[in-house]
Amino acid sequence: WGSPARSRPRQQGFVTRTNTCGELRSAHVGQEVTLYGWIQYQRQGLFLVLRDFQGLTQIIIPQDEAHAHVKKLLSNAPVESVVRVTGIVSPRPPGQENPKMPTGDIEVKAETAEVLNFCKKLPFEIKDFIKKSEALRMQYRYLDLRSSQLQYNLRLRSQIVMRMREYLCNLHGFVDVETPTLFKRTPGGAKEFLVPSREVGKFYSLPQSPQQFKQLLMVGGLDRYFQVARCYRDEGSRPDRQPEFTQIDIEMSFVDQAGIQRLIEGLLQYSWPEERGSITTPFPSMTYEEALADYGTDKPDTRFGMKIVDIGDFLRGLDIQFVQKALSYPHGSVKAICIPQGVVSDALHTEVMEIICRPDGSLKSLLTKFLGEKQQSELIQALNMQVDDVVLLAAGEHKQVCSALGSLRLESADLLEAAGLVLRDPSAFHFLWVVDFPLFLPKEENPAELESAHHPFTAPHPSDTSLLYSDPTKVRSQHYDLVLNGNEIGGGSIRIHNAEQQRFVLEKVLKEDSEVLSHLLEALEFGAPPHGGIALGLDRLISLIVDAPSIRDVIAFPKSFRGRDLMGNAPDYVTPEELEPYHIQVSWPLEEKEFLASSCLHPCPTEQPWCRSNSSE
Amino acid sequence: WGSPARSRPRQQGFVTRTNTCGELRSAHVGQEVTLYGWIQYQRQGLFLVLRDFQGLTQIIIPQDEAHAHVKKLLSNAPVESVVRVTGIVSPRPPGQENPKMPTGDIEVKAETAEVLNFCKKLPFEIKDFIKKSEALRMQYRYLDLRSSQLQYNLRLRSQIVMRMREYLCNLHGFVDVETPTLFKRTPGGAKEFLVPSREVGKFYSLPQSPQQFKQLLMVGGLDRYFQVARCYRDEGSRPDRQPEFTQIDIEMSFVDQAGIQRLIEGLLQYSWPEERGSITTPFPSMTYEEALADYGTDKPDTRFGMKIVDIGDFLRGLDIQFVQKALSYPHGSVKAICIPQGVVSDALHTEVMEIICRPDGSLKSLLTKFLGEKQQSELIQALNMQVDDVVLLAAGEHKQVCSALGSLRLESADLLEAAGLVLRDPSAFHFLWVVDFPLFLPKEENPAELESAHHPFTAPHPSDTSLLYSDPTKVRSQHYDLVLNGNEIGGGSIRIHNAEQQRFVLEKVLKEDSEVLSHLLEALEFGAPPHGGIALGLDRLISLIVDAPSIRDVIAFPKSFRGRDLMGNAPDYVTPEELEPYHIQVSWPLEEKEFLASSCLHPCPTEQPWCRSNSSE
Repeated sequence: WGSPARSRPRQQGFVTRTNTCGELRSAHVGQEVTLYGWIQYQRQGLFLVLRDFQGLTQIIIPQDEAHAHVKKLLSNAPVESVVRVTGIVSPRPPGQENPKMPTGDIEVKAETAEVLNFCKKLPFEIKDFIKKSEALRMQYRYLDLRSSQLQYNLRLRSQIVMRMREYLCNLHGFVDVETPTLFKRTPGGAKEFLVPSREVGKFYSLPQSPQQFKQLLMVGGLDRYFQVARCYRDEGSRPDRQPEFTQIDIEMSFVDQAGIQRLIEGLLQYSWPEERGSITTPFPSMTYEEALADYGTDKPDTRFGMKIVDIGDFLRGLDIQFVQKALSYPHGSVKAICIPQGVVSDALHTEVMEIICRPDGSLKSLLTKFLGEKQQSELIQALNMQVDDVVLLAAGEHKQVCSALGSLRLESADLLEAAGLVLRDPSAFHFLWVVDFPLFLPKEENPAELESAHHPFTAPHPSDTSLLYSDPTKVRSQHYDLVLNGNEIGGGSIRIHNAEQQRFVLEKVLKEDSEVLSHLLEALEFGAPPHGGIALGLDRLISLIVDAPSIRDVIAFPKSFRGRDLMGNAPDYVTPEELEPYHIQVSWPLEEKEFLASSCLHPCPTEQPWCRSNSSE
Repeated sequence: WGSPARSRPRQQGFVTRTNTCGELRSAHVGQEVTLYGWIQYQRQGLFLVLRDFQGLTQIIIPQDEAHAHVKKLLSNAPVESVVRVTGIVSPRPPGQENPKMPTGDIEVKAETAEVLNFCKKLPFEIKDFIKKSEALRMQYRYLDLRSSQLQYNLRLRSQIVMRMREYLCNLHGFVDVETPTLFKRTPGGAKEFLVPSREVGKFYSLPQSPQQFKQLLMVGGLDRYFQVARCYRDEGSRPDRQPEFTQIDIEMSFVDQAGIQRLIEGLLQYSWPEERGSITTPFPSMTYEEALADYGTDKPDTRFGMKIVDIGDFLRGLDIQFVQKALSYPHGSVKAICIPQGVVSDALHTEVMEIICRPDGSLKSLLTKFLGEKQQSELIQALNMQVDDVVLLAAGEHKQVCSALGSLRLESADLLEAAGLVLRDPSAFHFLWVVDFPLFLPKEENPAELESAHHPFTAPHPSDTSLLYSDPTKVRSQHYDLVLNGNEIGGGSIRIHNAEQQRFVLEKVLKEDSEVLSHLLEALEFGAPPHGGIALGLDRLISLIVDAPSIRDVIAFPKSFRGRDLMGNAPDYVTPEELEPYHIQVSWPLEEKEFLASSCLHPCPTEQPWCRSNSSE
């Protein structure tokens, strides 16, 4: 940890162990110790390896008659049984030290032992969990949790969050405030879980974030709020999303965009685990327009180049039909990326054209016939093409062209790395602020109408405030995203604190019913301070820090991608009697009813469609 | 805070204020400062009092022509408007210092000012919130939050929790693990909220505590777990309960009851706010039987005496019919409490008999005719009666007698204090462990059947394990409650870690379907370590520390006793379309349907029963 020396926590308090299985060294030789742990391995009644959360210790099983009982206990206990061992720390015989093991200089000669619980045959070996199907591992999540990887991930997560709290609470005076999770539906909150109440027809809603509450806390004069907040989002089945997730939720009064950015940079620097190197601040910043133009996305992975290059000007004068057509659009453009060493996806966009740089430096492309020698060499220079490089060129509407090339850039990077090139240093962490987003976007289903690019509480950019009333599509916002290695790990904004402006945005621009937000609008009229904030996606951030493939690897009990708990089998059927106090009933589709009734295998007290049937995932 | 010196957090970072409104002193005289805050008070355009979360500062409004603009701004801004003021710190004129105000030695002569937001007419004055109805204050909770009392409560809560985290995480190696809140119904979990899923007929359940998960974390080798856990309980309308609440949730492996008790004592001592005095450890301990016999409750208020005295032996030989009848019961007893100074509730239990000690020291009671002089004086001595004291006597079944006298003891204490006697020092904190609870209790609706006194995972007392199989009603448990000033603020137990024992309890003693807990039973078979834990009710604990009448006073956005959010109007109606993805529909009672349809006052797009109608509370 990159901060004042922290003493290690005492793992011995309140229990009768003298040491953990990870801490005995030569200095302990001669001491009598009591260890508790799981049998990781046992060999021929001679020795065993005892494991706890902190490491492994080799235990020597006594062979003399006086210790026959201990030998019998330890030799017969199956792997993963829990034992207590008391014994003397001894040096390992010369030549038998294990330098790969932190405790490899010593062993413990067992004097007494006790089997605290036996383990039946495991569904999979714990050390080799990686090879097993994820569904099996999730069903036996408590076994998977014993793996060193998950122990490391969860412990590091706990420590990072603790450091964040120290920074916010102890160093900078933030107040940790818990906000309700049983609230009401927000307008357009289609992804909110509902919770039936005992009042007929009335439902609570599990909020996607504490957005309204954190703003109301600022109106309430709390000044600096943070919360490690549980949030909920019902998106149905989506890979690597969880129906409940955690965000570091922050809000401040009297702050501007730069203030929040410096706060977050300090927060990450302070809580960054030492073992992952250090991070430099301030983080670089890029406007949304630049990110789109150069990387084709609002979350650029800046660990490598291959940036998008505008070649419209080179081609403008040439008589190439698709180029001319593209450039005639209001937002038409012709752009390209240059991929080193010619690895190109097979599944190329049909609108994308290839230009290959031959070993002799000449270009091979459908395009070359339209290009003179000078134009070819200018193109080579502009794109910095080397021999064997491939350029992918796209023409059309600016945003679409950029997005297409942005996706190809990432695909190509994957292909290049699969082919052995190291483009992205796995130990590098590239943070980036993306700023100056548009405040509103045309609705996909009806581009004549506008919707908030992020949420309706985002304040307009100070330079663009007057445009709000004349041409809202042109207004930039005071929203900022934090991007890490091409992943959005946070986002926030300065909020609207003027009731009139907020009402104008809701009613006139977004054409929404402001009645549902009347409490918030009213709050803004009672002396709301200027305020802003941010939320960091904790699960994603931790998974990037520990380089885990999925956020499921940094959550103790994750749901499957279908939103199921495979260990406890949730969600599950309930009886109609249990629904009664909530005045709801299930709308069974006819087929389901019949299927369930016929597929019920257990002897049921009643032949109801809700009787428990296990479904596999 | 009773611990190594902590530097105060920096409230100035990331914003342009130079100071808060609570920190300017004589030492700052001559400095130019920038303050942000709310106008607490403004007088005749001469001065105003500016308030933020940290205090109040007097601002002098400039009267010269050059500052006419500043004067106009500050004189015209309504109370509770938000302003920025920049000015010079000056000493107050001699004799005008205010020793009651921490900043009372200085004032700030405004140079420039800005009104950041105006405040419209308030529904109530903020300083005088105590007098307003709670419903009004809850509707405008963001205004009530500006009161110094709520600011203090929420900030102290944040600091206490932070200190608890430091103790658990940094000092003792506990891992902060977040557990799911979308889980499945626990057997008998009648108070669990349901959350409809997108799978037809299947529901998640919001758990009342992370009990199963914390035990599974121990099986997973986490060793030491804690979480500041959001919990849910649907109890309908109950005074001073909240549908969502917070507990400090703790679990440890390889620990016994004494280990958990020492841990919690250390935790409370470490996190205890200095301004509330210090607390001594270890806390006293009492068995459930003792608590019931001496105080008539399992959560005795030990701040005062008036203990229950068994007088069965005195009366056994006398020919008093109701005494003889009571003593002939299997658990019959005759008990009494002595209330000083004769203040007795009017609403006396009919089964309770009074004995009054007359000024001359003789007793006045229906009972005296049965007592000889010697017996009377023995009784006076046993009960330590003084002149004017009143003894309340009850006879009958032991537990009922104790409970009745226990209630009378508390009622009498309230009456005595209302009459001016100080029985319970309001600044005293009496912690108490109550231990050796029965493991099972007869079910109220059918006393022949047993239910868990706490929950089915509680381990039997080591001395009573064999009774589990022969006479389960006699088994004491390894459950422990923590009581503070007569309030239960925590409870926990050593858990069953043996799968067979757990299955026996579930199936043979409790006659429950163990299928729903199959994942937990199976986990115990895979090398579960011995483990135990505790949960502290954070809301109650904090409310006792700050001496708040209700837990609503230590929660930022509490629900009303009916479970409603009066600010945002939750729960609320939703459209049938919003219910569709969850395959549920509302079972409208016929009258409700008609009433809602006829009472709909707004022009509705549809004449549906779910159209929004505000209901008051």
